[in-house]
Amino acid sequence: MMKTPLLVSHLFAYSQTYFPTKEIVSRTSNGVHRYTYAEFGKRTHRLSAALAALGVRPGDRVGTLAWNDHRHLEAYFAVPNMGAVLHTINIRLSSDQLSYIVNHAKDRVLLVDANLVHLLTPIRQQLTRVQAFVIFGGDASILDGPLQPAYSYEDLLTQANPNFSYPIELDENSPMGMCYTSATTGLPKGVVYSHRGIYLHSMAMGLANTAALSESDTVMPIVPMFHANAWGLPFAAIWFGAKVVLPGPAPSPGVLLDLIAEERVTLAAGVPTIWLGILKELETQPRHVALRMALCGGAAAPPALIQAYEEKHHIPFVHAYGMTETSPLALFSRLKSYQEKLPYTQKLTLRATQGLLVPGLEMRVTNGDQDVAWDGAEMGELLLRGPWIADGYEDDERSKDTFIDGWLHTGDVATVNEEGFVKLVDRTKDLVKSGGEWISSMDLENALMAHPAVFEATVIGVAHPKWNERPLAFVVLKEGQSASKQDLLTFLTEQFPKWWVPDDLIFMHEIPKTSVGKFLKRSLREQYQDYLQRRQNDTEIPE
Amino acid sequence: MMKTPLLVSHLFAYSQTYFPTKEIVSRTSNGVHRYTYAEFGKRTHRLSAALAALGVRPGDRVGTLAWNDHRHLEAYFAVPNMGAVLHTINIRLSSDQLSYIVNHAKDRVLLVDANLVHLLTPIRQQLTRVQAFVIFGGDASILDGPLQPAYSYEDLLTQANPNFSYPIELDENSPMGMCYTSATTGLPKGVVYSHRGIYLHSMAMGLANTAALSESDTVMPIVPMFHANAWGLPFAAIWFGAKVVLPGPAPSPGVLLDLIAEERVTLAAGVPTIWLGILKELETQPRHVALRMALCGGAAAPPALIQAYEEKHHIPFVHAYGMTETSPLALFSRLKSYQEKLPYTQKLTLRATQGLLVPGLEMRVTNGDQDVAWDGAEMGELLLRGPWIADGYEDDERSKDTFIDGWLHTGDVATVNEEGFVKLVDRTKDLVKSGGEWISSMDLENALMAHPAVFEATVIGVAHPKWNERPLAFVVLKEGQSASKQDLLTFLTEQFPKWWVPDDLIFMHEIPKTSVGKFLKRSLREQYQDYLQRRQNDTEIPE
Repeated sequence: MMKTPLLVSHLFAYSQTYFPTKEIVSRTSNGVHRYTYAEFGKRTHRLSAALAALGVRPGDRVGTLAWNDHRHLEAYFAVPNMGAVLHTINIRLSSDQLSYIVNHAKDRVLLVDANLVHLLTPIRQQLTRVQAFVIFGGDASILDGPLQPAYSYEDLLTQANPNFSYPIELDENSPMGMCYTSATTGLPKGVVYSHRGIYLHSMAMGLANTAALSESDTVMPIVPMFHANAWGLPFAAIWFGAKVVLPGPAPSPGVLLDLIAEERVTLAAGVPTIWLGILKELETQPRHVALRMALCGGAAAPPALIQAYEEKHHIPFVHAYGMTETSPLALFSRLKSYQEKLPYTQKLTLRATQGLLVPGLEMRVTNGDQDVAWDGAEMGELLLRGPWIADGYEDDERSKDTFIDGWLHTGDVATVNEEGFVKLVDRTKDLVKSGGEWISSMDLENALMAHPAVFEATVIGVAHPKWNERPLAFVVLKEGQSASKQDLLTFLTEQFPKWWVPDDLIFMHEIPKTSVGKFLKRSLREQYQDYLQRRQNDTEIPE
Repeated sequence: MMKTPLLVSHLFAYSQTYFPTKEIVSRTSNGVHRYTYAEFGKRTHRLSAALAALGVRPGDRVGTLAWNDHRHLEAYFAVPNMGAVLHTINIRLSSDQLSYIVNHAKDRVLLVDANLVHLLTPIRQQLTRVQAFVIFGGDASILDGPLQPAYSYEDLLTQANPNFSYPIELDENSPMGMCYTSATTGLPKGVVYSHRGIYLHSMAMGLANTAALSESDTVMPIVPMFHANAWGLPFAAIWFGAKVVLPGPAPSPGVLLDLIAEERVTLAAGVPTIWLGILKELETQPRHVALRMALCGGAAAPPALIQAYEEKHHIPFVHAYGMTETSPLALFSRLKSYQEKLPYTQKLTLRATQGLLVPGLEMRVTNGDQDVAWDGAEMGELLLRGPWIADGYEDDERSKDTFIDGWLHTGDVATVNEEGFVKLVDRTKDLVKSGGEWISSMDLENALMAHPAVFEATVIGVAHPKWNERPLAFVVLKEGQSASKQDLLTFLTEQFPKWWVPDDLIFMHEIPKTSVGKFLKRSLREQYQDYLQRRQNDTEIPE
């Protein structure tokens, strides 16, 4: 067979040839912008030429600091097509993190949305390798601002050589993109994507066994294009000729639902909080929607959310799982045909899991070296392998902790049922290991938060002289509600084995959180590490 | 990204893990055989062990001479899984061709259906490299026949080492299969398939933009498993977890329709004559069928056939195109979403073409070095490139005539319309080149055969002193019907440009045919090459 390489430029060329009249709809600060794939293609080609004129060569990194819009989409193809590397930057990072990753990635050019320029001005001096800032939109004055040298994106495209030709025949394993994980502790870690990986990942998104993304879809990635390739949707949607809708800067649930209704979106993708917001909007101001798939990832969606979409609004709601290191699609929760006959509650339980491994990948769930039983109960760490799974972090000593013997260790703890459905139960570092047995802090937290008096709750493992580690709970009550420690522990006793129930429960006014709203368990652990031992000095622990 | 190779063994392992309870139904000489994927997997593993015990090593060729049944399916995976090469042999070849390809492929072991053993006995002495004949089915006496050394397939599986482990980590570009083209002239040419090619081809079959083959399908390859991998269906169906139905030895249209109805087949694939037979059966003895796709390839289906399936029986009928050299899926005739609004006749015309290029491949249609206009009229040869397109024939000097500058020259002449739909108009060697312009012999033949008095017709190009080549028609009239030469030529004049109309038309009692029923144009060309020149010596040709 021919050894033709698997390249992003193939996706682009195929799409340009077969779908020139399909539409791309992009919400920007200046209103909704519409054009065809053919126009998109011409501008994309000009962008490659403009970047080459700015000195970008194959292998160079080009950063983007941008919303989901048509210019960002142009960069998604223009940069890989010319053999350069698209580095999508999370706009929610701190200044320190921003300057770290721009420098660490060695970004040579940054493409920046006019309304995000303010994120870079305070750190301009640190960005010593950046040779040009190319600004999406904004008025002329922005080019005279403190971010220098600055260029207008539109001017560069206008001036670009339309006859630019791509410099080299690429190897399919060469890098085409990168994205840094938003590490909760320590510095962000960079993942480099290859042409081959993105090509195969895009194919996987078009499979009828997974998202079945096709020409007849209208696809709206709500998930930001700076988060793990917007789950790969831009690449797959353009390849297969779908209509693409990009929701632009900071879209509210109302704006998103309007776009879904007006553009007749069939497949949209976002995190649970986004879907929760859209649901609320849908229930206060109903609109007619044509969604065939509400794709949800990034965190576990509560079964109640799935149920609300499906029972009340007849919108199929599908769970997927992945991470920056997995391009990201790794698990996809679609029932097998014979499972469609199960009672609804059983189906809902299955669909609320992270689902089945996507064809093309391999997985293991292990406890130490041992694979766990696929019984829906035994817990282990999820390990992944395959052609769109990273094999290390960019220039980072921490790679060896995550990539071991050819497997990505996800840090996610899961059970697998007899049919292969994977259910995440915790992060490895948040598991409580009591007397050699694992207890899921997440399960306990979810149970506590389902109590009518509880506003929020978290559970950590703390040192214990006999069991090595035992769970300790922290609870914030709802305003005007009351519940005693014993009430809540009894509430848990009714739902879990006795040895899962936390040894103590501490009421607080607020649980410390990270900048993105996750519980800051690390700080609680530091503070409460010796809590049970200290308490034991006073009294015996009931077992 | 990880450099994990794309291997057939991945498809097999994934399928075994996620779909162990799915069913494989196989019609054999001894009735219908049913088992699960798990049982299929165990036997497949034992077959690898048995072949290893017979001396088969990675890279060795294992031939099959068999119908579409479960044992053939076991070989489809057992042979590639162990790094050996599955050589599927066309059971309709002549003895000379059979012994040529078995020797040329260097087959070390042959797996032979008991009821096909008679094809090999006359040529046993020529098959000097074959070390073992393994017989599917039949009674014990067959092992004592003239084909030696012979082994019972079932006995070998029973005796095989269930703990066999595969010898090596394979390269994805290593060969996994081969198939010889059924050349109409000269010796058959061997195509070697790679693991990477079949993996990507299988993914392409699962795309929603093409066949959307999925777990919820019941797939029946009617196309023989010795024809271009049964169009790749066995690999894709097993990977994605579909129920598989294999129709066994020489199935009649009645048998096929029974299987379609009883097993609730959703996707079946065959050549137009098969679909014509099933249609006839469906109309004489109606049965309830659940087909979501009647997949048709191998030759052009007449629009009337498509119409009959869709209008009368509400069975979506889909045209695809490929050849042994293309694994084989290359074109797939599915309308774009916005074309669904076209009037029915226009849609039918589009769907009767060979369709759009499958994602992952590249194509050109060229006249000399020039790409033809995509206007639905200009004709050129179809060229293909991509990871599941062959780059040469196995050890064959004729490779250089077909594989030129990195492109497969298909020998098929086509037009392409504005939307990229490819319509085959002829084989290059059958085109008539008159005064530098191409005339499709196939179009003229189809037009003649649509005349009520015509039973069959063929058109060839013959030498002409002024125009270099001109068309000459041969016609057999239906019994009891009559039409004059002038009637038929006038009939053509009404449908084609004047210069397309053949210079002469010769009535015959029968048109000479090949063993598979195709018109033997070569013999007509030899006989009539000088016909017009000879005739010109007598009289002037009207122009």
